[in-house]
Amino acid sequence: MRNQKGVTVWFTGLSGAGKTTVAREVERQLKEKGYYVQRLDGDIVRQHLTRDLGFTKEDRDENIRRNSFVAKLLTQNDIITLCSFISPYRKARQTAREIIGEFIEVYVNAPLEVCEDRDVKGLYAKARAGEIDNFTGISDPYEPPQNPDLELRTDKETVEESASKVIEYLEEKGYINLPEDVLAG
Amino acid sequence: MRNQKGVTVWFTGLSGAGKTTVAREVERQLKEKGYYVQRLDGDIVRQHLTRDLGFTKEDRDENIRRNSFVAKLLTQNDIITLCSFISPYRKARQTAREIIGEFIEVYVNAPLEVCEDRDVKGLYAKARAGEIDNFTGISDPYEPPQNPDLELRTDKETVEESASKVIEYLEEKGYINLPEDVLAG
Repeated sequence: MRNQKGVTVWFTGLSGAGKTTVAREVERQLKEKGYYVQRLDGDIVRQHLTRDLGFTKEDRDENIRRNSFVAKLLTQNDIITLCSFISPYRKARQTAREIIGEFIEVYVNAPLEVCEDRDVKGLYAKARAGEIDNFTGISDPYEPPQNPDLELRTDKETVEESASKVIEYLEEKGYINLPEDVLAG
Repeated sequence: MRNQKGVTVWFTGLSGAGKTTVAREVERQLKEKGYYVQRLDGDIVRQHLTRDLGFTKEDRDENIRRNSFVAKLLTQNDIITLCSFISPYRKARQTAREIIGEFIEVYVNAPLEVCEDRDVKGLYAKARAGEIDNFTGISDPYEPPQNPDLELRTDKETVEESASKVIEYLEEKGYINLPEDVLAG
């Protein structure tokens, strides 16, 4: 038996809100402690699993469905799976939860102005200039979680603080640091 | 640490050759021993991950690429991953090996006549009647492995015999039953 129980931590939020940054820090800390962790990142996955898909609602939904299928495979094998996807539609995130089962919704919340001001990838500028269609927050909707399991205010807390919240939540819910007697059971 | 090292066992062969049947038996025996095992099956995956794809060479290649990406994620997390895909093209299987890394090619070999005679899913009859295009062995090529890691003659051996060969190979190569001193290292 492994000293961990499978779960998917689903980071949702605007582009530039810090989903990947926080997920990376959580990954780093958990791997340091010897846990099996797999990150699934929108930007990377779109080069492999879903490179045929664009950013229409239909394509976004299919993107989430495929990734949920993969996250489920990892989760059911007791991997801590960290998913960073904008996943702007409430219903698609609900579908992800239903497919995956063990699921923690983390709202990575920074105001649009902050994300746009950061504009790490230069995408907001392009979206404002009309060079990118269907850009979440600019020309496409973002439906914030109404009742997320966790909310991270990345405009007000450090990456380390956000990551700690996630790790503490995983401990609290018994996904990591399982006591010996549970493992033997 | 887990008492297992990640690897993908890739079953290739004609429809009806017994890929899924053998993979299921391997899965059953390994799970009974407490190993983490994940099967990826062409028929199932096509309902989720690759339901947009057909059976042209291009679509088959994309099917293998996506599944290889998923198998890699599982394998790098030390899951024993059992893939059952016709995967008729030598080059696509080579690509799978390159993507995944730890990779065992298993040629599930039964003569076409035997597979056609079994015709479990009634597909050969339909292919002969011209109701299915691009059917491997009938209207589409199958390129047998030239130097597979393992060959199973499912027309001459029982499912149990085939499964035992796979499990013995996994032990021999050190993917399962790792001794304590290796685990501590």
